Amino acid sequence: MLNEDNIINLIKSNPLSRRFVGDDAATIPLNDDTSLIISKDLLVEDIHFRIRYFSPKNLAHKALHVNLSDMAAMGATPKYVLLGISVPSHYSFTKELLEYFMLECQKHNVILIGGDTTGSHDKLFISVTIIGTANNNDIKLRSTAQEDDIICVAGHLGYAHLGLIALEKNINDFDLFKQKLLQPEAKLQAGLWLGHNEQVTSMMDLSDGLFTDLNKLCKASNKSALIELNNIKLTDDFIQHCKKLQLLADEVILSGGEDYSLLFTVKTEKYSELSDTFEQEFGYKILQIGKILQKSDQTIYIKKDDIIIEPNLDIFSHFEQKTRSKTTPHI
Amino acid sequence: MLNEDNIINLIKSNPLSRRFVGDDAATIPLNDDTSLIISKDLLVEDIHFRIRYFSPKNLAHKALHVNLSDMAAMGATPKYVLLGISVPSHYSFTKELLEYFMLECQKHNVILIGGDTTGSHDKLFISVTIIGTANNNDIKLRSTAQEDDIICVAGHLGYAHLGLIALEKNINDFDLFKQKLLQPEAKLQAGLWLGHNEQVTSMMDLSDGLFTDLNKLCKASNKSALIELNNIKLTDDFIQHCKKLQLLADEVILSGGEDYSLLFTVKTEKYSELSDTFEQEFGYKILQIGKILQKSDQTIYIKKDDIIIEPNLDIFSHFEQKTRSKTTPHI
Repeated sequence: MLNEDNIINLIKSNPLSRRFVGDDAATIPLNDDTSLIISKDLLVEDIHFRIRYFSPKNLAHKALHVNLSDMAAMGATPKYVLLGISVPSHYSFTKELLEYFMLECQKHNVILIGGDTTGSHDKLFISVTIIGTANNNDIKLRSTAQEDDIICVAGHLGYAHLGLIALEKNINDFDLFKQKLLQPEAKLQAGLWLGHNEQVTSMMDLSDGLFTDLNKLCKASNKSALIELNNIKLTDDFIQHCKKLQLLADEVILSGGEDYSLLFTVKTEKYSELSDTFEQEFGYKILQIGKILQKSDQTIYIKKDDIIIEPNLDIFSHFEQKTRSKTTPHI
Repeated sequence: MLNEDNIINLIKSNPLSRRFVGDDAATIPLNDDTSLIISKDLLVEDIHFRIRYFSPKNLAHKALHVNLSDMAAMGATPKYVLLGISVPSHYSFTKELLEYFMLECQKHNVILIGGDTTGSHDKLFISVTIIGTANNNDIKLRSTAQEDDIICVAGHLGYAHLGLIALEKNINDFDLFKQKLLQPEAKLQAGLWLGHNEQVTSMMDLSDGLFTDLNKLCKASNKSALIELNNIKLTDDFIQHCKKLQLLADEVILSGGEDYSLLFTVKTEKYSELSDTFEQEFGYKILQIGKILQKSDQTIYIKKDDIIIEPNLDIFSHFEQKTRSKTTPHI
């Protein structure tokens, strides 16, 4: 199996493809003002979800929002969607899945314009293509973070991961966290708002976890980053739920995937104002994660209590083969 | 499992989606002159292909051309493509498949702009989304066939089916026919030419077989059709190869799928001229299939030697579950 870097490098070896790949979605300029923003994400049974605890409604919701989140990360407005599903003949919920998918599209003013439905031998596959538009001035990339920028996250960190572990281990309660895994809400309004904000220098969504995704942003921008764990405000509720699962909160927020929060960078001198305005606008605080370093070794340094630490980040692999960072590249 | 009609009706129940579904691809008007044409097709191992006789090159070729063919059927020029693949870990050909896919894209001036790659448990899934453009005046639909129009096919009928049977039964030779199944060539130039021709009243591509696809065209146009088998010129070579497989040539041309030829209708009085010009332009003859009937019972009548016949069209199901017309709707 090729890893993500191999695949992206292979595609970038084609000079025509080069300028389209590397971000959450591809940008096709339509005119001086507007571009099409296009992305495609696959969800595979027992790689990305289990039928045991994903209802058809959850699946429909997640398949759409994983793609909406790519639009949010680019500062785009989603417009159209195509749905491909390969369904084993012993699953009887195609209609239900499709109905929920259409309802969720309607809720976000996205029009289902086509797709394909086939049989499958024993696993369900869902493939969604989403098409949006963005003002050319508002499109945010991963490759434009600057030295000293403040690294920020809009949304939760590690919540979906706690939900995943609770569901995998059949642990009761954890409802809020399970909900975050089963029905993540793409940060569409926040994405548009941040896209429109000139102080935001780069952006992507968090699908693979903070450490892995920040690494991608640093590689794209040819920078390094410092994560200051003491700065990241965690709630008592989150810390207690980590303890119940015998997980270290720091490792969960660094490695837990599938939160579909927004990771972005802001010019230092404008951070405070942007942070306040964001809270007024959206009713919750941006998380302050750390800062971008000039060093071009593209390394993520993690600091806690004034010491640079090396946490054990190998808390994935709950599903056989499940290391999204290796197997689910956005190409 | 929902059948194609159920799925299309479900999607058409949403007034916003209605105008996009039902053709080979969705049309999104960009301005007075041009539209975006978008389609998505899935290929699933052991439903649409077998690894035993599809090389990575074949798979890459077919995955692209099945989608290029949707562009051809709409009179569109393909521009961009997104590739999603879910690959079992014991398959080592991802790089080869991707390289061939990119080469084939290059050959047709299509740019690979993104996609997604994931693991899979035991079957390979390929999902392609293609985006093209068309002049608004040149876009052809399935729903616009008129009474007395001549029904035509550009390309072979039944060739891919003979290839499929020969490959499934491990029969040697049949190279031409196997090639048509393994590496179909989308009729892009013919599609553009026919799209630009005002005498062509409707068009679609042939993926499920003449009988099934003509049925779709008639339903969309609220018409019936007469297929005149004596008019369809078969080569001796084709007839002999049908005999070798103990298949009736008539049934193969009516039911054999995956030829990716173009099915279209032409105004009667213009047929002769169009047919001649087409042959001069492309070096092969259009097949004359029959004509559109006004009757709104949406039935396909088949005539041979002046008798209306009812052939046995149940020659599919070589693969378990394989009835593309039921399991692979274009939604």
